[in-house]
Amino acid sequence: MPSSPIRKLAGAARDAEQRGNFVYRLNIGQPDIPTPPGALEALRAVDRSVLEYSPSEGLASLRNAMALYYARFGLDISPDEIIITSGGSEAVLFAFMASLDPGDEIIVPEPAYANYMAFADSAGAVIRPVAASISNGFALPPLEEFERLISPRTKGILICNPNNPTGYVYSREELEKISCLVEKHGLWLYSDEVYREFCYGPRPFVSAMSLPRIEENVVLIDSVSKRYNECGIRIGALVSRNASLRASVMKFCQARLSPPLLGQIVAEASIDTPEEYLRQTFDEYRRRRDFLIKRLNEIPGVYSPTPEGAFYTVASLPVEDADRFCQWCLEEFATDNRETIFMAPAAGFYTSSGKGRDQVRLAYVHNIDYLDRALNTLQQALSAYPDSQKNN
Amino acid sequence: MPSSPIRKLAGAARDAEQRGNFVYRLNIGQPDIPTPPGALEALRAVDRSVLEYSPSEGLASLRNAMALYYARFGLDISPDEIIITSGGSEAVLFAFMASLDPGDEIIVPEPAYANYMAFADSAGAVIRPVAASISNGFALPPLEEFERLISPRTKGILICNPNNPTGYVYSREELEKISCLVEKHGLWLYSDEVYREFCYGPRPFVSAMSLPRIEENVVLIDSVSKRYNECGIRIGALVSRNASLRASVMKFCQARLSPPLLGQIVAEASIDTPEEYLRQTFDEYRRRRDFLIKRLNEIPGVYSPTPEGAFYTVASLPVEDADRFCQWCLEEFATDNRETIFMAPAAGFYTSSGKGRDQVRLAYVHNIDYLDRALNTLQQALSAYPDSQKNN
Repeated sequence: MPSSPIRKLAGAARDAEQRGNFVYRLNIGQPDIPTPPGALEALRAVDRSVLEYSPSEGLASLRNAMALYYARFGLDISPDEIIITSGGSEAVLFAFMASLDPGDEIIVPEPAYANYMAFADSAGAVIRPVAASISNGFALPPLEEFERLISPRTKGILICNPNNPTGYVYSREELEKISCLVEKHGLWLYSDEVYREFCYGPRPFVSAMSLPRIEENVVLIDSVSKRYNECGIRIGALVSRNASLRASVMKFCQARLSPPLLGQIVAEASIDTPEEYLRQTFDEYRRRRDFLIKRLNEIPGVYSPTPEGAFYTVASLPVEDADRFCQWCLEEFATDNRETIFMAPAAGFYTSSGKGRDQVRLAYVHNIDYLDRALNTLQQALSAYPDSQKNN
Repeated sequence: MPSSPIRKLAGAARDAEQRGNFVYRLNIGQPDIPTPPGALEALRAVDRSVLEYSPSEGLASLRNAMALYYARFGLDISPDEIIITSGGSEAVLFAFMASLDPGDEIIVPEPAYANYMAFADSAGAVIRPVAASISNGFALPPLEEFERLISPRTKGILICNPNNPTGYVYSREELEKISCLVEKHGLWLYSDEVYREFCYGPRPFVSAMSLPRIEENVVLIDSVSKRYNECGIRIGALVSRNASLRASVMKFCQARLSPPLLGQIVAEASIDTPEEYLRQTFDEYRRRRDFLIKRLNEIPGVYSPTPEGAFYTVASLPVEDADRFCQWCLEEFATDNRETIFMAPAAGFYTSSGKGRDQVRLAYVHNIDYLDRALNTLQQALSAYPDSQKNN
């Protein structure tokens, strides 16, 4: 299983803090937005005397609530088509385990969420990357590049939309291109849409579940973690119209008995959160994005496209090796105020070696004041970084 | 992945209920004992504003509490040696994934918990069974039978102690025999001890973690589910003194981000439950066991050994095919009061085909009055079962 550069740097960040430095953590996706009050209230209102197993597929009441939630997006999904999982992570793992055999291949546009590789590895499957480019904002790579990788071992395509780490939102036209490929070659389309709510426009969000002709091929990965800022409750879902896939997934669900009961209670209450909460969260993220992207592009040599979704961006820095620069920030640099910054080197999101070496992922899950100070720190760090290590 | 006979019968049980019959469910391990009030209180006292990710290895406070809990059993385990998992299920899965390669073999005394096979299958590993016998209460099979199966592919031995499904508690002498084998062949010893609290004597419980010379080989599987009747919170643990194994397990833990936060809060509060709660639970289970075993052995042709632990027994019935009998009970039989019984055919706990065909597993997680009526129903069912299907 690959070890991500982020994990190697986490120790360096803790060491920096122990030396008395303040570390701006733009590396992670743990938002500072509060969990909806109604969700926390539901927790305090639990009046069961036994915290018993829930059904392996999840509580019927939560699956009903989720079906109503999807209907708000115009998606006609029945509760039977929804399987509750321990976070989106388990949904990805079970999707791969249930649909792939050892040696099977999945094509994934990169950069991509690093843990997909870990889950593919658990299923004995292989990820074949197709590189997206920062120069066009990480748009879908040309279809020919997918076609070139297709072999009898190819069993699926995975997309994350809106994208982690790039924030890119796929257009309807791009999704239709993927759909053609999926239909033509009889592939699975795994679509991770956990950032659905966070599309800042102008492009509308299009779910893979709404694509015609490949209804039986789509496996939707979902999670309440980011939507309601309750990452810790570990509630996700695998949604598919394919009954035979769901039956395979259920075997894995039954082996692990049930998803977390308490998280399901909180998730169900979260779905009832007033529209106002999501709108405020959305507005706050959009403000942060606008601020972050503007400030990033004001720093000499730094470039970030303007992502339309999620709460990340991948930016290029004027350094040869961003991994080394991130490590230097944590191990050797501090401002006069003893501040430094922790970013995720983008190389950890690429399977192809050598790609994205000058790129980092930044999360905008902290408030604008925090981001402002973090970017001042980044600018000072880039100025202080020895020329000998910049571009030689 | 094998499909257990229990799952096939679950539908028949639901159908029987829909026809208006009452089904005594002795098939499952969902206890009727309340969760400790202090654990539920901790839930209502959660005053976090964000339900954020916990560390991948679990909350430090819970790991500290568990180390103190183990100390009560004379086990000197440091919090660093404890990794919190999503139930004991995930601990088994990660133990296998982290320590086994595809094709590797584990030897397991059977009958055994059916989901071990599912998890081994997920890791691409193979379970090689050694049959225990009802005639000596499912004691450890002779060591020669283990030796006979050992090959270069053998990587571990798995025991469940106290045992699910048999209720057998391994003696120190038996554990020392296993220990010799583990040491001699350099194997892993996976020891599932989730029923540790439920040993009714006279034999004392001995943990695999206390065995000398194989400290680095033992992987302890644990869970708070049964101990505190909180199966739904999905909190277990993998405990090992082997730092290299723990590092491998942590890669899987990091890929799934974190174990459930709310369950961890409840589990930590549960560990502080007054001794009185566990003693009452223990006394209640012992009374139920005494009642169940006595009544079972009073039914003509039925035999059950007296298990010393957990809350199950495996009994033999005067029928040729217990799977068919269990199905008949649900599909064709009802008492005059429209009652019937759901038992788990023991064949589902054997990997070897044809073993345990006349055996069933019965759980005593319901009160004595319920058990009494259930056994009356079983006795009537056996009397009514057509002779043609009994022993021909």
